[in-house]
Amino acid sequence: MPSENDLNQLKEQLLHPDPSFIKEQLEYIHPVDILSVLHEFPNEAESILNQLPDETIALLMDFEEDEDKYELLMHFSARRQKTILEEMSSDEITGLVHNLDEKEKQDLLEKMNQEDREEVSALLQYHDKSAGSLMATEFISIRENKTILKTLEYLHTAVEDAEMVYYLYVIDRQDHLKGVVSLRDIVASDFDTRIAQITNPHVVSVHVDDDQEAVANVFAKYDYLMLPVVNDENVICGVITVDDVIDIIQEETTEDIHRLAGLDEEEKVDGSLKDSIRSRLPWLTVNLVTAVLAAAVVALFSGTIEQVVALAAINPIIAGMGGNAGTQSLTLIVRGIALGELSGKNALRVFLKEFGVGIFCGLSLGAIVALGCLWIYGNPMLGIVAGFAMLTNLIIATVSGFSVPLILEKFSIDPALASSIFVTTATDVLGFFVFLGLATLMLPYLI
Amino acid sequence: MPSENDLNQLKEQLLHPDPSFIKEQLEYIHPVDILSVLHEFPNEAESILNQLPDETIALLMDFEEDEDKYELLMHFSARRQKTILEEMSSDEITGLVHNLDEKEKQDLLEKMNQEDREEVSALLQYHDKSAGSLMATEFISIRENKTILKTLEYLHTAVEDAEMVYYLYVIDRQDHLKGVVSLRDIVASDFDTRIAQITNPHVVSVHVDDDQEAVANVFAKYDYLMLPVVNDENVICGVITVDDVIDIIQEETTEDIHRLAGLDEEEKVDGSLKDSIRSRLPWLTVNLVTAVLAAAVVALFSGTIEQVVALAAINPIIAGMGGNAGTQSLTLIVRGIALGELSGKNALRVFLKEFGVGIFCGLSLGAIVALGCLWIYGNPMLGIVAGFAMLTNLIIATVSGFSVPLILEKFSIDPALASSIFVTTATDVLGFFVFLGLATLMLPYLI
Repeated sequence: MPSENDLNQLKEQLLHPDPSFIKEQLEYIHPVDILSVLHEFPNEAESILNQLPDETIALLMDFEEDEDKYELLMHFSARRQKTILEEMSSDEITGLVHNLDEKEKQDLLEKMNQEDREEVSALLQYHDKSAGSLMATEFISIRENKTILKTLEYLHTAVEDAEMVYYLYVIDRQDHLKGVVSLRDIVASDFDTRIAQITNPHVVSVHVDDDQEAVANVFAKYDYLMLPVVNDENVICGVITVDDVIDIIQEETTEDIHRLAGLDEEEKVDGSLKDSIRSRLPWLTVNLVTAVLAAAVVALFSGTIEQVVALAAINPIIAGMGGNAGTQSLTLIVRGIALGELSGKNALRVFLKEFGVGIFCGLSLGAIVALGCLWIYGNPMLGIVAGFAMLTNLIIATVSGFSVPLILEKFSIDPALASSIFVTTATDVLGFFVFLGLATLMLPYLI
Repeated sequence: MPSENDLNQLKEQLLHPDPSFIKEQLEYIHPVDILSVLHEFPNEAESILNQLPDETIALLMDFEEDEDKYELLMHFSARRQKTILEEMSSDEITGLVHNLDEKEKQDLLEKMNQEDREEVSALLQYHDKSAGSLMATEFISIRENKTILKTLEYLHTAVEDAEMVYYLYVIDRQDHLKGVVSLRDIVASDFDTRIAQITNPHVVSVHVDDDQEAVANVFAKYDYLMLPVVNDENVICGVITVDDVIDIIQEETTEDIHRLAGLDEEEKVDGSLKDSIRSRLPWLTVNLVTAVLAAAVVALFSGTIEQVVALAAINPIIAGMGGNAGTQSLTLIVRGIALGELSGKNALRVFLKEFGVGIFCGLSLGAIVALGCLWIYGNPMLGIVAGFAMLTNLIIATVSGFSVPLILEKFSIDPALASSIFVTTATDVLGFFVFLGLATLMLPYLI
């Protein structure tokens, strides 16, 4: 990646470009590096942008973050906006429009030519984060009776607008997807070979309504560079490329990591104080409610605690360990669901394993706690009560850590978002209840 | 992705293949799907494998998980192992050998032809998880004086062994990397154009010693499909492709998510009970130690609790909310470090924001808790003590959630691995101490 020095040099080249630079070198400078210069030197951004040709601006738009695309576009006159929009690829325009309010959206759609407007309006119909909303409509399709030489000649012009040229999709007269040919096979074949001879009929595709996480998993599994997106009639509607998938994977994992910890998925590490508080306070407040619930259970047994004050010290150990074990289970399950590794087929086996983990870890930790209580307080019954409560709570932890994410998934609630609140409520409330309840039953032996 | 029905059908085709199937259809079936059949029907795996040609086996080896490659290879006679190894790409052989013990490794190296052996031995010298250890040496290089037509003719044979053919690297006589040409530009140019005319001299490369996470970030930033890997002399040594990068990103994020929850990074959702216990019990045991530490603080104040038993109920609320707020902060920081979003430049600003979050959330939640205590127990001083303890503990939570990951990072300890234990110890121990200590000081007003 370019150093600060490189960026400075690039800034000078962009600020005072001679015609030969624009004509010969500009196309080889990566748009991401130009964007870095613009963000690093905001005062010069305006002057630099005015020097750049429309195609370059369109590329910058493609690589700019979705939420910053509009601001970039607004640097230009309405007339230039039109030509820039014409050069942009359909998926990037859709990404841009998705972030706008209704007025800005209409304003932008009016600036497009009719073909683009219809295309983008169609793309906007797809559900957010579906394959349809991510796809680009610029792909290369071909009929199977062409020869390689004819195909190569056709590509001379066809590659101009295509999102990615490395796979060509073979279609029939009704645009049904019949197969795929890789550019690799095309260049490896003799010029008089026909496309039909090198067509792979086993083409893997995704459906326009598929969720982006499922799309990412197909890419990760099969190592494709691009996938065709089809509708119910197997008509090819667009393509999704691997570079978008990397962004999706990073976005989805950040979302999962944040949600598991009770953070809004949009919170940025260097965001504003206001955004951070808005991201965290609701979650903390929900947690406060469950903590009060747990405290109510403790209060229920205050008579017992008054007589055996040691219970107040051991109590958080039981609940806390349950919380830790529950977090382990639910994290494994949530990640397993996200990676598509948990299915109806192996669910029972995974459940039994989690149950086993609860029993084994519960017995081990229960034994340690029991012996510790015996050693410190010299009361064997206190040890038995604490050890048994630990065992019970670890089973509650692993079983709820397994089931809560799956139940939420069934109800189409993101398991990363809400699992931990239910699991820790279970381990807190039930952990306190089992421990203090047992202690109350055994009170005569504890005093 | 294929349904169970598809897999069953594919199994039958593979088990009883007619010659035309092997000759015409097999190449179009994705190796990943064949691997699914082998894993789904282990009893038939042997018979299926014996029917498949060496090139297909080599492809299966390329797509099999690194840790299972060796077992797959051992299905075959020593003679077939040799031919399979010859067909495999160098990065996959390196991945295979990395997982073997010394004896298996030597055994395998002896089975290779001399060229492969030298190549793999050289690749094994690179540090694990470096660009050098990930790269494949099968790339296409070209001199800049060739015409497009000559290049296309050359590609007819050259693509056979190449890892990915979509970029060609332009080199001089000493193999120095001079530029890159995309296959897209080649097919878009007239046949008599020379390579020099379409060469991009601004080629982005990674160094053999670069860490895999840094390599992944370059891919994510620039959207490349493949990057050349160079040594100190700018000689091209190999290439890394985007599909490997998706695996790296998924591996690194699973590692972070698991470690944040106290799971071993290798634990699989449908792994064995033994592996799960080995993954989780050590972490739970460490947590038990810190829980006991926290309990000791509570025990220290048992005299106070005996007199005001309400403290035993409020206590876990203070500590638990601190734990939740601390987890939020540390998760945000750990993810920010992983994505390279936290630097020396913005650290102070982020610290002040976290501090602010602690104060604001502490005041809000503290006020709620104070009013709750007043309402339930009718004791204003109890409310003040609980509210103040909540405020203090939330500041402790956000400040330690910010600092612990950064300190661990400074000492080259993975912040995802160890942050939460330090942060929750801080919020538990200090939370209990502040609350019960304050209560003890104010005891006369609480009874």
